[in-house]
Parts: sequence; C-alpha cells; structure tokens
Amino acid sequence: MDRRRFVMSAALGAAALPGAAGAQTPAEVQWRLASSFPKSLATLNGGVEYLCARVADLTDNRFQIRPAADLAPPFAVLDAAQAGTVEIGVTSPSYYLGKDPAFGFAAAVPFGLTSRQQMAWLRHGGGLDLVNELLKAHGCLGIPAGNTGAQMGGWHRKEIKTPDDFKGLKIRVAGLAGNVLAEMGSEPQQIAAADIAAALAKGTIGAAAWSGPYDDEKLGLSKAAKFYYYPGWWAGNETLWATVNLDKWRDLPATYKAALQAACYDACGWMQARYDAENPPALKRLVTAGAQLRPFPPEVLQAAARASATVMADLAGKSPLFKKTLDSWKPFRDEENAWFGHAEYRFASATYGQAGPAKQ
Amino acid sequence: MDRRRFVMSAALGAAALPGAAGAQTPAEVQWRLASSFPKSLATLNGGVEYLCARVADLTDNRFQIRPAADLAPPFAVLDAAQAGTVEIGVTSPSYYLGKDPAFGFAAAVPFGLTSRQQMAWLRHGGGLDLVNELLKAHGCLGIPAGNTGAQMGGWHRKEIKTPDDFKGLKIRVAGLAGNVLAEMGSEPQQIAAADIAAALAKGTIGAAAWSGPYDDEKLGLSKAAKFYYYPGWWAGNETLWATVNLDKWRDLPATYKAALQAACYDACGWMQARYDAENPPALKRLVTAGAQLRPFPPEVLQAAARASATVMADLAGKSPLFKKTLDSWKPFRDEENAWFGHAEYRFASATYGQAGPAKQ
Repeated sequence: MDRRRFVMSAALGAAALPGAAGAQTPAEVQWRLASSFPKSLATLNGGVEYLCARVADLTDNRFQIRPAADLAPPFAVLDAAQAGTVEIGVTSPSYYLGKDPAFGFAAAVPFGLTSRQQMAWLRHGGGLDLVNELLKAHGCLGIPAGNTGAQMGGWHRKEIKTPDDFKGLKIRVAGLAGNVLAEMGSEPQQIAAADIAAALAKGTIGAAAWSGPYDDEKLGLSKAAKFYYYPGWWAGNETLWATVNLDKWRDLPATYKAALQAACYDACGWMQARYDAENPPALKRLVTAGAQLRPFPPEVLQAAARASATVMADLAGKSPLFKKTLDSWKPFRDEENAWFGHAEYRFASATYGQAGPAKQ
Repeated sequence: MDRRRFVMSAALGAAALPGAAGAQTPAEVQWRLASSFPKSLATLNGGVEYLCARVADLTDNRFQIRPAADLAPPFAVLDAAQAGTVEIGVTSPSYYLGKDPAFGFAAAVPFGLTSRQQMAWLRHGGGLDLVNELLKAHGCLGIPAGNTGAQMGGWHRKEIKTPDDFKGLKIRVAGLAGNVLAEMGSEPQQIAAADIAAALAKGTIGAAAWSGPYDDEKLGLSKAAKFYYYPGWWAGNETLWATVNLDKWRDLPATYKAALQAACYDACGWMQARYDAENPPALKRLVTAGAQLRPFPPEVLQAAARASATVMADLAGKSPLFKKTLDSWKPFRDEENAWFGHAEYRFASATYGQAGPAKQ
C-alpha cells in the first residue's frame, strides 16, 4: 500500500501537512462500455447497469463506467475492447467462435454445465485461467459478469417430432449450438437480438432461440411462432463476460481492479437471480397468450447428444486450445454430474420435477 | 458525492491547492467478526475469509474485518452482533428459530427453494426486506453471504425404509427440519459442528446431518455411520448471512457499506461455487471409503412433505412474521417451481438425472 500520498480537507481549511499519515486516493477514471445486448432487457442490460452502478458506489464515483451506444456492433464487442475503442465490453463468448471455437467453453457447451457448475469450473476448477489464456490472445482480460441459466429450445413455426425435423431448418442460434445443429442438418443463423422477431415472423427463418421466457417475450418472439420448445440442450447456462482491454486493465489502481472484479461477480449473482425471478411470471404470461410448450422428444435429445459428441471431437482436432480446455473441462463435468445427480437432482425432483411426490 | 475535499501528493512536493477537485478518504475502520463455523471447513470458513479479504482489497485495507475467535458460541453469533460484542457475525438463521420461527425462511425451508430460487426470492422477490424486518427487531442488518446448495440427508447408523424409521430417532439437524422431524416422531438435536462426529460414533444420536460430502468428510461423520442418505429434503439450499450490528452499520461511510455488500454477494457466489467444486471429489472419496449411498424412499419423502405442510401451517398460527413471510414466499415458490420444471429440470435430466439420455 502506497502511503506516500495524503489527504487533506480543504473545506475545513486545514493546512497541508507533508508526511502526515493518510491513504492514496486514486485518480478519477472514466471508461466506455460496449454491450452486445438491447436496452429493453432488464436481465442482460440490467446486469450491465448494475455492474456500472456498483463500481461507482465502491469507488465514491471516482471510477465511472458508462455504457456507450453504437461504439460496437453486438457481435464485435470483444473486437472493440481489444482495439481500445472501448475500455470494456459485456458480451457472450458465443459470438466469437469464428476466432477460436474454444470461446464456446466460456459461454455454453451443448449438454454441458449448468449455471452453478459453470461457476464452480471457472472459479475453482481452473476454467477462469483457460478462458483468460484465450482472451489474452485477443488483448483482453475476462471476468464473468452474468448468466442466463438453462435456456429454452426456441420458438418454432413447426413442431419438432423427430431428429429429421431439424434437417434444413433455418434457426437463429448462437455458439456451439450452431455447430451441432449444422451437424444435424440445420442451417444455423446468427442474428442480433433486435432483428430476430421480424425474421421469424416473415419465415426467413423457421425457428429462433434467444434465451428464455422473459427475454423472448420482450423481443417479441412469442408473436412470431407458437411452439416453444425445452430444454435448450445447447445452453444449460450461458455465461456473459466483461472483456477488459488488457492495457487499460494494467493501468488501473489495485482498488479499482478489486472494485471491477467484485462488481462483476456481484452482477453474476444479480443477473441469475433476476432471470430466475422474471422467467416464471413471463412463462405464465406466454402460455396464457397462446404459446404451445413442447418438450423435445427423448429421441431428439439423444440424436442431439450424439451430434454434440461428434462436433466436440471434431473441434478438438482443429483448435489446440479447444482440446486443452476440453481435456480439463470434461473430467470436471463428469464428476460434477455424478454429484449433482444425488442431492440436487433428487431435491429438484421432489419440488419441481415431474417425479415430485408432493407439494405443501 | 462530496467534492469539497481534495488530494495532494506529498511525495511529489505539490503545494496544497484549496478548492481543487478530489475525493474524501474515509477513516480506517476495524471490525471483529464472529462465525458459527469451524476453521477446518474451506467452504464455510473459506467464504468468511474471502469476504474479509475482499472488503480489505476494495478499501485499500482501510476497512478491516478480522475473525475473532471465541467471542461467541456457534449458536449465539446473532446475539453477539446484536449486543455489539462483535460488529458482524456470519451464521445460519437456522440457529435462531427459538427467537422466531420466521428465521427459517432466511436459511432453509423443508421442500422449499433451491440455492438459485432463494437468491431470486431474496434479491428480486421481496425476501430481503422480509428477512431484514426480522433482523431489525434483533438489532441487525442481514446480507446474504453464502450458500451450501441442496444438502444430503445425513449419516445414519440404521437404514431408513419407511417413515416409521424416523420415530424415536435422535438426529442432529438444524432449523425447520427439526420441527418437521419432531412431527414425524424423531428427537432432533442441535449440536455444534465440532461435537457431532463423537455423538454419532458413540450412538448418543442415531443420525446426523450437517451439509454435504466435503464438509461431512472433514467433520468425520463418515467414520461414525455408514448409510448416507439423500436428498436433504429440509434444505434445498441453506443461506448463510452476514449479520451486522445496526448501529455499527449506520456509522459506516457509504463506500464501506458498498464494499461490505459487494463482498457479501461476491462471497455468496464464491462459496456456492466452492461447495459445487469440492463436493464431487469428496463424494467419490466417501464412496470409495465405504459410505453406502441411499436415496430416501418415495414413501418417506411423501410423509416428510405432509409433515412439512403441517408444521408450516402450525408455525404460521404462532408467529405473525412467519405468516407474513409465508404469504409472500409460497406463491413465489409455486411460480418458481412451475418454471424450473421446464428448461432447468429437463436439462438436468439430460445431463445428470437418472433419465439422462446420453453423455458425450
């Protein structure tokens, strides 16, 4: 701790006392933030606002992060942070598989981890280091900043009864889901949030997955197709990240680094809780308004799991970092699932599963 | 924001510039913390250490919270914070049902919420205000500071095959579980962590529930009984809380309040992730060492759910705040479960449930 600086109250008219004990007050810092998400969403965008407000509160408003609109397109937020166009972005790594498929592990893996399992892997299973090895190569430091939880399987204009119904389907989806759906014969499309509903309503695409009831309702997807499938087997969680320009990060005083980290982790919990609070009433509203809920048939899930395995093996052969991450991630996931199948799954079965024996 | 104070660099020999822009540096604050949890547990105690370290990092070490041993017995940490013996405690509200059964909602409700559902209720469903109405009456402010996730159903010397096997059973358990087990004919005992294994080994008690594989192994429970039941239907989550003496809280500068809040919420995520990372390998070790895993039979869960409903209705008649909280909590829980039964449950079924169709 640098004690060479001291603070003095000008308001009280105190004289400067060179050498008096005191603490260093870091300089004021103003950052611009680019986000991949539309302002209409109280979940994703609400998390960004929460993060910025928390950083300000923690630093007596001396470190200010302000969302800057139009500095980066939704799928180029990482690029903007890398280039220094903004100091920080909030985005989904799902959008950057073209740079390296290993970004998939940072966001969502088909039949992968749930929200809690993902945070366990990142914070205590070596995941954070692996993700940051990847982000470092793109000039950024990553801090988890939010999660959607398990997603729905999207809005479909036609029912999905067999794996063959995915053949030729134009479906809006992001991340590794796209690779798996392509393996199943679909034509995955990456479309920014604001443009999805129109494409679906027009029939330019036959299905669209964003995240879950609350967001999907806000984006108008429920008005564009009526069959609402679950689960989104491609996203048991989707982790959103703050991607910080590495040079700008290194320039931050230690207390501001701590403030940003704490604010991001706090925002993770805040956003997951917000999704978990908003999705239930939204689902109810959607069903009342005519949405037809459909579980994917077991046969479809089985085919999707086989296609996922093929895709994961294939990508491991193409990206060294994908392989390195998979080798760490897979045994972690297997052990997670062996544990979660006991207390968590049986408790869930008793309270919200189809096998639930009783309600109070 | 007070802009009337300014900062000056003595090291650089700069002259005092009255009226220059700058920030107020709050005074140094040192707090003592009492915890209900043994130092041996990297989960619960690790969370306390994480919280204290984060607060220090956020305030350039000017706000220091130091665990103070032996200032409060495990089940009187709230009392110590209320009395001002310590400024802050970290504890489970389960230990204070004798003061008001409404404390149960803050910690764990039989067949209640999961970890994520609980955070949704607290942060976005009105729960935090209700819990703090209760804590205010006990001179404290509460901030969630950790979670165990769904717990196991404890270590049993004898198998549980029917609900009748709970009759006359002396079982170590905390919180509303005790009320429900008493309703089922058991004799629940509240025993501090350090003393549980000895009581179980001696046969003073016939069963003991703490939390899950990692903690239970550390506490030596696996050596004292061999049947390890799941799920802990009485704790789909158990929330741990920072209980802050209200007068001391009011005295804190705004940035320190923000630091403590952010650190607590950050610690919530950290601790849940730590449990979720430590429990899987611990479960594996326990099974290798001879633990016999047993699911509670459906008939037992059904009887427990009936007993829970009886107890909840009974307590609502005894405590006005229990009734008020139940009236808010119950519809929230019902809506949560209706949603979680879709994407989350089906995704879990596909990856870690017995119904999982495939693994990669």
